[in-house]
Amino acid sequence: MTALIAFDWGTSSLRAARLDERGQVLEERSSTDGILQVPAGGFPAVFERITQGWPLHGATCLASGMVGSRQGWREAPYCPCPAGAAELADHVLWLDDVPGGARVGLVPGLSAREAGVPDVMRGEEVQVFGALQRLDTDHGLFVLPGTHSKWVRVAGGRITGFSTFMTGEVYAALRQHTILARTMAEGAQDNTAFLRGVQHALRAGSLLHGAFSARALSLFGELTEAAGGSYLSGLVIGEELRAQRLQNSALQPVLIGSPALTRRYALALSVLGVQARELGAEATWQGLWSLAQTLDTTA
Amino acid sequence: MTALIAFDWGTSSLRAARLDERGQVLEERSSTDGILQVPAGGFPAVFERITQGWPLHGATCLASGMVGSRQGWREAPYCPCPAGAAELADHVLWLDDVPGGARVGLVPGLSAREAGVPDVMRGEEVQVFGALQRLDTDHGLFVLPGTHSKWVRVAGGRITGFSTFMTGEVYAALRQHTILARTMAEGAQDNTAFLRGVQHALRAGSLLHGAFSARALSLFGELTEAAGGSYLSGLVIGEELRAQRLQNSALQPVLIGSPALTRRYALALSVLGVQARELGAEATWQGLWSLAQTLDTTA
Repeated sequence: MTALIAFDWGTSSLRAARLDERGQVLEERSSTDGILQVPAGGFPAVFERITQGWPLHGATCLASGMVGSRQGWREAPYCPCPAGAAELADHVLWLDDVPGGARVGLVPGLSAREAGVPDVMRGEEVQVFGALQRLDTDHGLFVLPGTHSKWVRVAGGRITGFSTFMTGEVYAALRQHTILARTMAEGAQDNTAFLRGVQHALRAGSLLHGAFSARALSLFGELTEAAGGSYLSGLVIGEELRAQRLQNSALQPVLIGSPALTRRYALALSVLGVQARELGAEATWQGLWSLAQTLDTTA
Repeated sequence: MTALIAFDWGTSSLRAARLDERGQVLEERSSTDGILQVPAGGFPAVFERITQGWPLHGATCLASGMVGSRQGWREAPYCPCPAGAAELADHVLWLDDVPGGARVGLVPGLSAREAGVPDVMRGEEVQVFGALQRLDTDHGLFVLPGTHSKWVRVAGGRITGFSTFMTGEVYAALRQHTILARTMAEGAQDNTAFLRGVQHALRAGSLLHGAFSARALSLFGELTEAAGGSYLSGLVIGEELRAQRLQNSALQPVLIGSPALTRRYALALSVLGVQARELGAEATWQGLWSLAQTLDTTA
């Protein structure tokens, strides 16, 4: 029996799942209907298409990610930190004009402030709550690497704060739109070059300086075009880690994401003497399931 | 009487000057024939055009900048640091096939190594030697802001080391090729937003994190599109300064460049309690003149 229909609706992709009363995934679907692909007013139609044949009437649907942003279905205002499942549940935005008579809740993103400067995320908070369930813990440091990496601090079951790093996006901008583009070609992941990049980033003290080493090494024939991309990846991920001041920390950060990416971060963290645990992105379903349980008890 | 014909021949522009026997500029010309605009084998023709009517026969010509790079007229290999005027003079690459019977020397760039990683510059070394002459000193910290900012350390009249920061280029890449592009519009320089960016960069500890604040502030209506560019400029320049660890240093860095740019760096440095001196880019002619004097005495 379907107890929850869950959506992971991001900028460039949409995933949907039907979960039973124990939170197990019965069926999963995905499409390329990320919010940037959906025309104005087009969200109900995409919703109908991806849920075709599923028991919608009276069903609880929860959607996390950019679908709740200003460019999404409707804007679910950010919930301020510290926030646990209860605070998140309080801020779910319910839509009452959904095809098929479903009850769709848009999960809000979280906001945090440090020294008066805001930071935001949308979707990652659900993955973190899922990871807490999965690991049966109520605290820790959670890292969600990607275009915009999130470093999320959790205590007492609540997200107390977080920081965004534009690592993936800056990698792409450096690689394609600076002088470094000239010295790099497609190449397989090269772990030696990657770790050399990590090491240099830790020493260089700033990516603005460290990044130029890719150019200078190439001028002296000390970095091949094929290894250039891996080296640059090491530079940006190394820079992200440098800023965390984790050296030889006893903390075991939890990396959440695709195995290719979390493996790379774990490798970089090993340079700092830090051990990490890795979790897959399926944490999203677990997070939405746990949020649904909270909604039931607080309803 | 013409004693030296000097060239500042960079990537996107060419400047030439005729200097008298006291090093005073008699005449200056400029064109858009930067090395990227010159077709293969086209350097002699551009040289002839810009020096038309000048007394070339037997004249000493010195050219600094990217004209001595692999993509330039001919490659003048980098001179390793530490390097003073004498080492630079030793590494000048003389061309003997120049129209009009001139003797053209390509000034080499400098290379430095730190922890096995190279850094390079071409052209800035001449400006630094010019600044030493101009300020009648043999030591100091010299900053040449721009696409690739150079921080140059001088002791005993020699450049002992330097570091490159891709500040200008990363600013452009972030501004045009990341999500930040969406939240920024053309606007006049806004010093309040600029200084706010500097302050945040000093706190944020890494540009990868600091840059995202431009996005988050804009989401909350706390940064206007018109002020976005100035704020981002403060973020990248603040990041460059953060990495120097200059806080309340008694050092007075010498800023060399266009007044618009050196003024902005001086403003950012004031946040750190650091006073700076500013010099214009005309230091190039003084540097090439001083190099010509060294060539005469060592010839």
